[in-house]
Amino acid sequence: MTVQKENKGRVVVALGGNALGDNLDEQMVAAKKAAVAIVDLVESGYEVALIHGNGPQVGMIETAFETASKAEEDFPILPMSVCVALSQGYIGYDLQNVLRYELDRRGLKAPVATIVTQVEVDPKDAAFTHPTKPIGGFMSEEAAEKLRGAGVPVVEDSGRGYRRVVASPMPIGIIEKDVITALLEAGQIPIAAGGGGIPVANDGGQYKGMGAVVDKDRAAAKLAELIGADTLIILTAVEKVMINFGKPDEKAIDRMTSAEAEAYIEEGHFGKGSMLPKVEAAVSFVKSGAGGSGKTALITMLDKAKDGIEGRTGTIITC
Amino acid sequence: MTVQKENKGRVVVALGGNALGDNLDEQMVAAKKAAVAIVDLVESGYEVALIHGNGPQVGMIETAFETASKAEEDFPILPMSVCVALSQGYIGYDLQNVLRYELDRRGLKAPVATIVTQVEVDPKDAAFTHPTKPIGGFMSEEAAEKLRGAGVPVVEDSGRGYRRVVASPMPIGIIEKDVITALLEAGQIPIAAGGGGIPVANDGGQYKGMGAVVDKDRAAAKLAELIGADTLIILTAVEKVMINFGKPDEKAIDRMTSAEAEAYIEEGHFGKGSMLPKVEAAVSFVKSGAGGSGKTALITMLDKAKDGIEGRTGTIITC
Repeated sequence: MTVQKENKGRVVVALGGNALGDNLDEQMVAAKKAAVAIVDLVESGYEVALIHGNGPQVGMIETAFETASKAEEDFPILPMSVCVALSQGYIGYDLQNVLRYELDRRGLKAPVATIVTQVEVDPKDAAFTHPTKPIGGFMSEEAAEKLRGAGVPVVEDSGRGYRRVVASPMPIGIIEKDVITALLEAGQIPIAAGGGGIPVANDGGQYKGMGAVVDKDRAAAKLAELIGADTLIILTAVEKVMINFGKPDEKAIDRMTSAEAEAYIEEGHFGKGSMLPKVEAAVSFVKSGAGGSGKTALITMLDKAKDGIEGRTGTIITC
Repeated sequence: MTVQKENKGRVVVALGGNALGDNLDEQMVAAKKAAVAIVDLVESGYEVALIHGNGPQVGMIETAFETASKAEEDFPILPMSVCVALSQGYIGYDLQNVLRYELDRRGLKAPVATIVTQVEVDPKDAAFTHPTKPIGGFMSEEAAEKLRGAGVPVVEDSGRGYRRVVASPMPIGIIEKDVITALLEAGQIPIAAGGGGIPVANDGGQYKGMGAVVDKDRAAAKLAELIGADTLIILTAVEKVMINFGKPDEKAIDRMTSAEAEAYIEEGHFGKGSMLPKVEAAVSFVKSGAGGSGKTALITMLDKAKDGIEGRTGTIITC
């Protein structure tokens, strides 16, 4: 059986970095679970490109080099852009391995590989003066205060503790988009723009790495737009987007238009570090297809990806 | 101008890890020089897949995590296979960036990207009991003795000092070969099997990472064989392969058949850690095309790649 026979459309799937666990063992278990959900889509006849987050992993990589540079003379501290590049190898290797295994197990012949991907950002993006993206592990208030004293920006994250933050500029281009398209057209499964992509800025024709981490949901929306995807799936910890979350009139949303989503955003229904960037990414993708192209975005949890794309659950966002 | 118009054949180019420098600044300068040589081939009409070494870089990555794991509780020590995966992101990011710049500068439209690549090895390969592949930076005899005392294998390398060694098994397959082929067929430039590829062994259908570093010239020969390349180019520090090296009757070789090369190998003309694996890789590639397919291998230095493939210099190995 080949995957190409009944093409139901091109899909970009964004998988959370926290959903991949905090260490290698957790990552391997989580990656296997993700593989089942992704291959469900492939088996149903969708062309799939996969983006993953890298929050915990990129923090770990940066910490390793920072620690080694303190212990050993002349040991390099890696810029954040290079740490993202390493994290794409680290996570991509695991993901492509478990995806290939799951495809083989079901008798599907679709090669899968990770593409080291650069995402273009604007060096004048206001995000560079207001870092907001949490990276690395959680720390105590005491450890956070110590880092703050050393000039490293730290925030309280989701009630789980303190984390370092870096700039999170908007993606304006995907340098390797033609590579990703070529693989999809050959019936293959690219894993791309891991961790939101390596953030680079155009400096007279040369792309220079930037000290930032691009939000992977925003990068997924930009990639989906540029490669002409029909659907953007953002996988998260909840089955549906909620309004009035945690209040007596809390309500799960089955479908919303981009205009309705923008109204909910305006009313402050979505958490800044959690649901807000996902809904914003979904809106930006479906609006990129304005004019009746029928692009849709889906926000749901990992296990519900296939049910969601077939309209049985999740929150669907349309233009 | 598109690259595909006058296709002169498919070429796998193997670029030395030491040729990429010992740190990020050196790597950037070296990568730019490499980009000019590679794009010369692309501009001449060759389809090019690029493999790079990672000796200094994978050692640095392993050291960073080892150091951090000593300094911080619960910090992961990365297996060698995972270190190779990280090194593919680290080096590939730089290489694809400088290649893209050089292609743009010459008005060539060929997308370029790094493919995270796994190379299959045999877990019963004798190399696992006799580690021989130097990795990481050079160290003093004193530091070497200390490591040896801790059970870490260390060797004297090329008169430049001491280095750690790991197992270097033979590559028997390239898991992502179909991805690399698809990109070549789309007129694109894949960077693949960096550092000889992530070494994995088939364990009941699942590929498991192995504690090894595959020789990148051998991986290049296997890749060239599997993707049906016409030519394998192994770039090194010398313009031609020498016999009787350093002796009064020293002689540069312009052309040799695989039988002649095997006789020279038998006579011990080539250094174990330097020229021997390159000549062996060249021989294994040209012999894979036995039966009149006319496959050739070229060993020369970076700046001479184009002159060499056009027959003006270097050492040509034929079947």
